[in-house]
Amino acid sequence: MPRFNPLVETLAAPPIPSVFAWGKAYDGRSGPMIDLSQAVPGYPPHPEMLRLLGEYAASRAYTGYGPIEGEDVLRAAYAGHLSQTYGVPLDAGNVHVTSGCNQAFICAAMAIAGTGDAVLMTDPYYFNQETTLAMLGIKTRFAACDPANGFLPDVETLAAAITPDVRALALVSPNNPTGAVYPTELLSAIYDLCVARGIWLILDETYRDFLPEGTGRPHDLFGRAGWQDTLIGLYSFSKSFCIPGHRLGAITAGSGVVEQVAKIMDNLQICPPRSAQAAVATALPLLADWREENRREIARRVEALRATMAHTPAWRIGAVGAYFAFIGHPFGDAPSARVAEKLAKEAGILCLPGSYFGAGQEGYLRFAFANADVETISRLKDRLGGFTLD
Amino acid sequence: MPRFNPLVETLAAPPIPSVFAWGKAYDGRSGPMIDLSQAVPGYPPHPEMLRLLGEYAASRAYTGYGPIEGEDVLRAAYAGHLSQTYGVPLDAGNVHVTSGCNQAFICAAMAIAGTGDAVLMTDPYYFNQETTLAMLGIKTRFAACDPANGFLPDVETLAAAITPDVRALALVSPNNPTGAVYPTELLSAIYDLCVARGIWLILDETYRDFLPEGTGRPHDLFGRAGWQDTLIGLYSFSKSFCIPGHRLGAITAGSGVVEQVAKIMDNLQICPPRSAQAAVATALPLLADWREENRREIARRVEALRATMAHTPAWRIGAVGAYFAFIGHPFGDAPSARVAEKLAKEAGILCLPGSYFGAGQEGYLRFAFANADVETISRLKDRLGGFTLD
Repeated sequence: MPRFNPLVETLAAPPIPSVFAWGKAYDGRSGPMIDLSQAVPGYPPHPEMLRLLGEYAASRAYTGYGPIEGEDVLRAAYAGHLSQTYGVPLDAGNVHVTSGCNQAFICAAMAIAGTGDAVLMTDPYYFNQETTLAMLGIKTRFAACDPANGFLPDVETLAAAITPDVRALALVSPNNPTGAVYPTELLSAIYDLCVARGIWLILDETYRDFLPEGTGRPHDLFGRAGWQDTLIGLYSFSKSFCIPGHRLGAITAGSGVVEQVAKIMDNLQICPPRSAQAAVATALPLLADWREENRREIARRVEALRATMAHTPAWRIGAVGAYFAFIGHPFGDAPSARVAEKLAKEAGILCLPGSYFGAGQEGYLRFAFANADVETISRLKDRLGGFTLD
Repeated sequence: MPRFNPLVETLAAPPIPSVFAWGKAYDGRSGPMIDLSQAVPGYPPHPEMLRLLGEYAASRAYTGYGPIEGEDVLRAAYAGHLSQTYGVPLDAGNVHVTSGCNQAFICAAMAIAGTGDAVLMTDPYYFNQETTLAMLGIKTRFAACDPANGFLPDVETLAAAITPDVRALALVSPNNPTGAVYPTELLSAIYDLCVARGIWLILDETYRDFLPEGTGRPHDLFGRAGWQDTLIGLYSFSKSFCIPGHRLGAITAGSGVVEQVAKIMDNLQICPPRSAQAAVATALPLLADWREENRREIARRVEALRATMAHTPAWRIGAVGAYFAFIGHPFGDAPSARVAEKLAKEAGILCLPGSYFGAGQEGYLRFAFANADVETISRLKDRLGGFTLD
């Protein structure tokens, strides 16, 4: 038998299905499963969103090939949304639509790095970004985020980790897995570092819409002169519109980056699936209030998580933010996968082991708490409180 | 400004948009544009296909994440269809759904080759396969297809081109760009060569459904003992169901290959868009008669092309088949892009230059004749007959 690509063959199997298998083995002894694993909002999409998806999918207008960069209507609508969000003018030429944010990341990574180059990530990291780089033969460097600092990256630590082969720094804010929201000033300082060192800043803001009310602008980087030569923004429509199954994300970048990404996307997919793009273009302004209400709902869930975890002080909140919490478990050196598996099978809590996000994260679990409503979250205290490992 | 990945930066811009620009510059002097460029059947999707796409897209059932490998219903339905087509049992575990056939190709290529490896292709080749390999740093070897032999590959020529770094042979049958249909015996001999040399055979059969009636099975390779260790089949639902905008393709392979592809797809897209998968699963058996009628319609278009080209003997049919014809133009050493551009702007015939499919193909143009109906095809004789280059 001919061999496989060793970079792919040596990758671990995708982690989410193995976690689902633990969930399937749960016998219900502690009550209905509380699924805090893959990030999927527990509330349904807006009925109007579903109606639009159906209407456009049934239309002959979207059956042919579309523009590689995405539907004009979605690029324009999303550019308008971005201009509002960041308070600076961005236009359709700054947007490349993708099939979800993982695809946005691989396109950005391929545009700026190849075999032998390196990308700097934080530790913990979002696992699909790490495996994407590994399968492309792109080396990874890591800058550890200090739990004592709420898992925020440290500019000095980042600077020290930029070896000469590093082409980009990949950040996620609000963070996956920790939930940490990177303050505007920190992002500014990191941006300045990237400019000074001549590397790209790839900033994944998939969870941007769940920042607490009154946070203000997520950052001012799109207002910097010449941002197009440093910044590549990533986003997903999956969480905000509750439609991950329709696979829609976007890259926000200068026209030079968009041009490179289009060459990659032509090979990868020719164009993103079209009818859902048109539906989201219509829904973006139409469902703004609904998304604002969801933002408030997620904030209530943050409070519910804090309240319930206050009853189980042995379980520590390492960080909590727009969608995720990074929870320190009380079992010392026990592997996080062992804790997570037993939590799933006995306590009916499905979450991801910290080790999936970095070798040094065995003491933690990722709770996608925003999947669950306030009442469900409040049940965590009993299930965690009564849980023992041995 | 930090640099781009040189493998991407040096790629030419995607070719189809530049051809569309020629079409936009046409002033209509010769009558309505005859678009034989990108392969898109000119007839609409079946109304029931559109109804199903709308129904499933409007359903909450497909808004969440789905299985990486594709919806169970589509994997099972397509496996059933394959079993009928090839006369051997194939099951859902042999199928990995992708977002179109370009994505199927990049997944197959990444699964078996990395930087420094090589893939052997025919010349002419399908350009997106060549650019996909180039951007991944995978080297390409070429085996020329002799026009005197109807552009069929020659087993000896292929054998001689398999250097030690070649991990796979990539073939397209029915061929893009030439239309040549590779005979069963030829595919058998090529398969034997791949087994003997220990390389994968990646066989793209996107245009399989347009083989002439009574052709019989496309090949017997899925019936070979141990085919899973050599053969990776690629397919697209775009052409058969007239829904390229919904981006659906598939890989047919052994479970070992499917497992590697799933790791790649998890990074690339998490899962293919879901609702269209469910719609096609229902449509596969439902629209079998409609697809058979389309097969007959395409055969009528082949005949119409032969008939109209008989009136313009200076333009030679190099090969013609299930969807494409590779047409030798009468202008000697003139670059094919110059001929194609002028055909678009003055004769209102949009087609692709041979040079897009290989440096040695300047004497040819690709006509995606199946885009046009019989009456439209018959108008080619006047437009080509009256055309001069200077």
